[in-house]
Amino acid sequence: MQLLKDRIIKDGKIRFGNVLKVDSFLNHQMDIELFSEIGKEFKNRFIEDEVTKILTIEASGIGIACIAAQYFKVPVVFAKKNQTKNIAGDVYTGKVESFTHGRTYDIIVAKEFLQQEDKVLIIDDFLANGSALLGLTKLVRDAGATLVGAGIVIEKGFQEGGELVRSHGVRVESLAIIDSMNEEDGLVFRN
Amino acid sequence: MQLLKDRIIKDGKIRFGNVLKVDSFLNHQMDIELFSEIGKEFKNRFIEDEVTKILTIEASGIGIACIAAQYFKVPVVFAKKNQTKNIAGDVYTGKVESFTHGRTYDIIVAKEFLQQEDKVLIIDDFLANGSALLGLTKLVRDAGATLVGAGIVIEKGFQEGGELVRSHGVRVESLAIIDSMNEEDGLVFRN
Repeated sequence: MQLLKDRIIKDGKIRFGNVLKVDSFLNHQMDIELFSEIGKEFKNRFIEDEVTKILTIEASGIGIACIAAQYFKVPVVFAKKNQTKNIAGDVYTGKVESFTHGRTYDIIVAKEFLQQEDKVLIIDDFLANGSALLGLTKLVRDAGATLVGAGIVIEKGFQEGGELVRSHGVRVESLAIIDSMNEEDGLVFRN
Repeated sequence: MQLLKDRIIKDGKIRFGNVLKVDSFLNHQMDIELFSEIGKEFKNRFIEDEVTKILTIEASGIGIACIAAQYFKVPVVFAKKNQTKNIAGDVYTGKVESFTHGRTYDIIVAKEFLQQEDKVLIIDDFLANGSALLGLTKLVRDAGATLVGAGIVIEKGFQEGGELVRSHGVRVESLAIIDSMNEEDGLVFRN
């Protein structure tokens, strides 16, 4: 998606430790007009899949998932990272290792919101080590629902996540795949 | 907002300890068509305020804020609850006491995303003890920006938050204010 790649080049900042800061438009401040274009692109890529539900994970996936959901005309469910007293015990659970935060946490979705009849599209902002996406995939499969695929905004193609998740039979559509990045030479996108 | 009140009566569940579960449409599974109507209503209520930015807090405020932002044509910034290594040191900070989680946490916004020229509308799903809203208000005022007001989906009018925040000079527009609720008698909305 050229509009997105151009924006990453213009406003993304490469930081030590393979960190790409896109917090001016994607995951702290959010450019809603860009999100609309991203949502349309996800719809185009999954137009034949009769998606009934979008699943994402708090926090930075939620905005993109909600804007995209307008094009699919389906509800969004977000997996929560900590069990709260507002969640009943009847939940699907998984574990996710966070690259950004350097720790492991539990994710949960209430069983009533993932049904066997659902055709689920997972949406998230980043794919790096693949842990979040595999955790979400497990929730869908535990529910006996159909996993249509995953729509990712930015995939770090130089990390193992994309290959790992695809090897589990998941269709992954990433709108921008970065093959390499460093502070000196900048970004190289996969064609 | 009658559509919202009807939905709360239809799908909200009252639980022990003044807990109102609305996770089938508001803060776990999210009904995006309802969010659009909520967004339009916020726009109507703040139509003359020349809002330049919407501020919310992770996680459950993000979806509503993003959908509402489409009617204001402005970016959304969400306050983060934990400092991550992707956030530079240059941040505004506040403290929030969570009613739901029973603990206190720090919230942060990068200084570059709240400017003195900004006219900020805060959007959140719930107003109960007012702690989150006061924390967000502090961030806006620390930035020297103008706080236009706060758009709240559900206010628990029987808790002290609404009165407390309004006493700090903040204009609060709540789309549904609950004056009392219990498992036997159900919900009573303020007119």
